[in-house]
Amino acid sequence: MSEQVEPVTVAVDALGGDVGASVVLPGVAAALEEDPQLNVILCGPAEAVEPFAAEHDRCRACVATEEITMGEHPATAVRRKKDSSLVVGCRQVKEGRAQGFFSAGSTGAVLAAGTLVIGRIKGVARPALCTVLPSPVRHVVMCDVGANADCKPEYLVQFAQMAAIYTELVLERPNPKVALLNIGTEEAKGNKLAQEAHALMKERVPQFVGNAEGGDVLAATYDVYVTDGFTGNVCLKTIEGTSKVLFGAVKQAAGKSPLTLLGAGLMKSGLKDLSESISSERIGAAPLLGVKGACMVGHGNSNETAIKNGIHITAKTIRLRVDEMIAQTAAQARA
Amino acid sequence: MSEQVEPVTVAVDALGGDVGASVVLPGVAAALEEDPQLNVILCGPAEAVEPFAAEHDRCRACVATEEITMGEHPATAVRRKKDSSLVVGCRQVKEGRAQGFFSAGSTGAVLAAGTLVIGRIKGVARPALCTVLPSPVRHVVMCDVGANADCKPEYLVQFAQMAAIYTELVLERPNPKVALLNIGTEEAKGNKLAQEAHALMKERVPQFVGNAEGGDVLAATYDVYVTDGFTGNVCLKTIEGTSKVLFGAVKQAAGKSPLTLLGAGLMKSGLKDLSESISSERIGAAPLLGVKGACMVGHGNSNETAIKNGIHITAKTIRLRVDEMIAQTAAQARA
Repeated sequence: MSEQVEPVTVAVDALGGDVGASVVLPGVAAALEEDPQLNVILCGPAEAVEPFAAEHDRCRACVATEEITMGEHPATAVRRKKDSSLVVGCRQVKEGRAQGFFSAGSTGAVLAAGTLVIGRIKGVARPALCTVLPSPVRHVVMCDVGANADCKPEYLVQFAQMAAIYTELVLERPNPKVALLNIGTEEAKGNKLAQEAHALMKERVPQFVGNAEGGDVLAATYDVYVTDGFTGNVCLKTIEGTSKVLFGAVKQAAGKSPLTLLGAGLMKSGLKDLSESISSERIGAAPLLGVKGACMVGHGNSNETAIKNGIHITAKTIRLRVDEMIAQTAAQARA
Repeated sequence: MSEQVEPVTVAVDALGGDVGASVVLPGVAAALEEDPQLNVILCGPAEAVEPFAAEHDRCRACVATEEITMGEHPATAVRRKKDSSLVVGCRQVKEGRAQGFFSAGSTGAVLAAGTLVIGRIKGVARPALCTVLPSPVRHVVMCDVGANADCKPEYLVQFAQMAAIYTELVLERPNPKVALLNIGTEEAKGNKLAQEAHALMKERVPQFVGNAEGGDVLAATYDVYVTDGFTGNVCLKTIEGTSKVLFGAVKQAAGKSPLTLLGAGLMKSGLKDLSESISSERIGAAPLLGVKGACMVGHGNSNETAIKNGIHITAKTIRLRVDEMIAQTAAQARA
């Protein structure tokens, strides 16, 4: 990375991820090594964060004595466990010591902490979880994928605006094509929410190109898919689950006989490229758009590389001032 | 088929399917040949249906001079085109000349004609489109997949009851596990509709096992997935689209080099079984549950085998008296 890159400070939840600190810490070390302008505030239990900080430049330990686990009710846990690594991490952003926060912990808890502790950007009705989905064609963006199960049409307009900003700046894709996830391409299709959102998006979102269907998402027909958090979450998990089932079935087919096994071996190089193209490892994190600074969620099953890339993308989101662009757009909408 | 099988009459839309009569007619011929107790009323243009009926026993021609095409607004087209093959076919059921109707035409138009022309079973609030999805594990059922974009919790309860009946009788799967498609497994998860439907289904649907997520559908974790027609349609098209993209990508990976191509050739026998297991050809048709008699929709891209199987499954649905079971359940719910 070039020397002109701006220094940033990211608060990192040492306990995120299914395997916790043993994966997060090597990821932090790799991120610090690759980005000499990166500072990390590592939040978690003293025995994990203090020795690590002592050994690494540009890393400060911030002790948190509690942990929010996957099974807890997100908002309740965030309210009660004020000394959890997650809440302590978000407080670093709230109080200005860090400009962004990254966690691979429970998505629901990160969303709750981001909204309750860091706080919304003025004019944003509902922060939304925006995922970058790997596809064999190219990465695509879907928003919301679970922060808001019940939505008003106005929320979807703002999801579209925020996701378009993220796609333009962070994915570096100018003029992204923004589509509304719906059940038909015609304008009049859909439930009441989709019909009303369509009409509003046509007026207020310059990048809006119309309706998309479920099959368009992984086909990467468009760049950004806007939907309520219920539909988006079902769609996202359907894509992940379908891929898993189909690859499992292909693997099983490969093991059917010595001949099919030999065939699979010969195909390996081709399949490896494909499997890399649809791995979420390089994406690293999904932003909670609409909160101040940056608040990013890593996959629960992140490995070291995914953690490293999640921290990098958090730093990039901070440096590109995604939150300021969102604040400007929200202010213009109010004007 | 055994001689004891009950004779049934199915009205068939000769114009359904992307390729029309040239695919439907051979499918009808094959169905008549395989099921000696099947009678068909073939509805469509005179030049197509009359010569065919003259050549085939147990087939009667019913001339319809109009056609409803894929692009038309379903309800409007059904109301205006009273002499379309679709409306004429449904009228055969309404007026008691046939016990069921099969069409591979525009899904929206079949749904509209089924509801408006054949009519609802007493006590059914909203007929619902129920799809049988092929999965590498086993077939699964999802309802609704597009008939009702906006739903009340009570509708979902009835979708669950109707889909459970169809799964038990027609798929011959006793005690099917019925799940609510949701965004988390915990009871309190979901949007308002899913939360309220969950509570009602727990009380009123004995086969209800709880929430499922998008990833559970193709994994066949449960037998029946209940959802509103908006979410169901997005989920269904996401599964179809994701499969298409991934198989396309595997094919591309296979063509990468002479070596990968050789490997793919060796794997062919294994992949063929898989591709057959997830083909919708053997399923043939999706029922519109909740209308009198039987009203079944075939895939728009059906081939001759799919048409044949669609007609067989319509006959089976009639013979098993799915509509009577639904009427009884609806009556019990009112009592």
